[in-house]
Amino acid sequence: MATAAVDISSSSDGKTTVTVRLATGKDVSAIAVLARELADFEKLAHICEVTDAKLLESSLWKQPAFQGPTVLMLEVAAPQSDDEEEEQQQQQRDQQGVVVQEAFEEVVRELNLTRPLKEDPDTDSCFRSTADERRIVVGFALFFPNYSSFLATGGFWIDALYVREAYRGRGLGTILLKTVAKQAVRLGAGRVEWCALDWNVKAIKFYQALGAAVLPECRLCRLTVSNLLFIPSSTSHLITNQFLQQDSSSSDMY
Amino acid sequence: MATAAVDISSSSDGKTTVTVRLATGKDVSAIAVLARELADFEKLAHICEVTDAKLLESSLWKQPAFQGPTVLMLEVAAPQSDDEEEEQQQQQRDQQGVVVQEAFEEVVRELNLTRPLKEDPDTDSCFRSTADERRIVVGFALFFPNYSSFLATGGFWIDALYVREAYRGRGLGTILLKTVAKQAVRLGAGRVEWCALDWNVKAIKFYQALGAAVLPECRLCRLTVSNLLFIPSSTSHLITNQFLQQDSSSSDMY
Repeated sequence: MATAAVDISSSSDGKTTVTVRLATGKDVSAIAVLARELADFEKLAHICEVTDAKLLESSLWKQPAFQGPTVLMLEVAAPQSDDEEEEQQQQQRDQQGVVVQEAFEEVVRELNLTRPLKEDPDTDSCFRSTADERRIVVGFALFFPNYSSFLATGGFWIDALYVREAYRGRGLGTILLKTVAKQAVRLGAGRVEWCALDWNVKAIKFYQALGAAVLPECRLCRLTVSNLLFIPSSTSHLITNQFLQQDSSSSDMY
Repeated sequence: MATAAVDISSSSDGKTTVTVRLATGKDVSAIAVLARELADFEKLAHICEVTDAKLLESSLWKQPAFQGPTVLMLEVAAPQSDDEEEEQQQQQRDQQGVVVQEAFEEVVRELNLTRPLKEDPDTDSCFRSTADERRIVVGFALFFPNYSSFLATGGFWIDALYVREAYRGRGLGTILLKTVAKQAVRLGAGRVEWCALDWNVKAIKFYQALGAAVLPECRLCRLTVSNLLFIPSSTSHLITNQFLQQDSSSSDMY
């Protein structure tokens, strides 16, 4: 395929069409590559085990969109003539069917690029959209419903939100996050939450600019599968030995 | 009702029976009180809006257990004779029905108390178990399925895990967390995760004693419903102004 850069930056007026659509099982190759890129970016490649097969077999596709883990694909294309656009929309309607349309109205935005896109170095065919070959996959968001006992309300937790390097700095991440937020509001959510890495100051500033609070006191705790299998039958002796006897104040919660 | 302390610490051999069972809509009063206690404990009462009615109307009960937000109730009772125990088990079978039994096998543990329980100051009738009036509600866990794009696997996120003050330090929290972990393994989970507050050193040590990793780099980001409604249409100008122009390195992710 032609490089993404040629497809997009050839547009003389600096406009491009951005689409956010629900992923399907056909998108696992792109999702796997994007997840690995995100892991590299976050210096977490050593814990990234994603493969096309794992994604296909996982719980990703077993519940209706927004009721379980859900993926949105972020795609861009050069602007088209009205005829092309109508043809593209018909193609989308044919492909996606009624259920998807009911759950999520595809987002299409014209974006005025004030700076040219960098040349896309990755011509991997997995980045050709499975919904429309004239579009290029430039990012994704993976999220799932969460629930707050303090609010007694559901919301979304964003596991991953990623925009490929050549497409950053144009508001594409904002469109993607805003799409997740709008859907959350539509479903009566109380919150949308996610984790950022403390050294990624730009991401944190980006989130704050969107209105997000960054909670400095919260620490993510994680039991991985090997720990899950070997939790001590009782940790009361551990707790007693380690700290319970030092102080029996009310901050001893368990 | 008699105080919980009288019910339990009257047992001469220091043993008590601990039960972990799936909550139902009948438990909203206890869950609301426990969630408010947890919010007080975490100095977050100002963001706690839980009520019985909100819990009842929320997404808590709309999906099968473990496929959406799920609550486990932690209960204790004085040991019973064999006859009483059989009667109690029959009562549980009658009440819970087949679906719940299939989804989750109720956990019943005999716990040998090495230290007497403190007197339970709260005789609120909401703490009488809705499943068996001879049991007292002493804690709860609220969790929901999560998903990791790096693992391409689902797991659980624990929103709340709480043991009432008079019942702490006896391994009850361990039984509850271990129950969540076992169920996670049973469903093929990759991880169980939750947030702890950094000042709650005892909780963090407790989690580490269980084998959990505490990730110092992760920062929880949160958009609440008011922010969700008013995300700027484009933050590209914000990003550009605030930090994109200062440095265009690859850590500019969006």
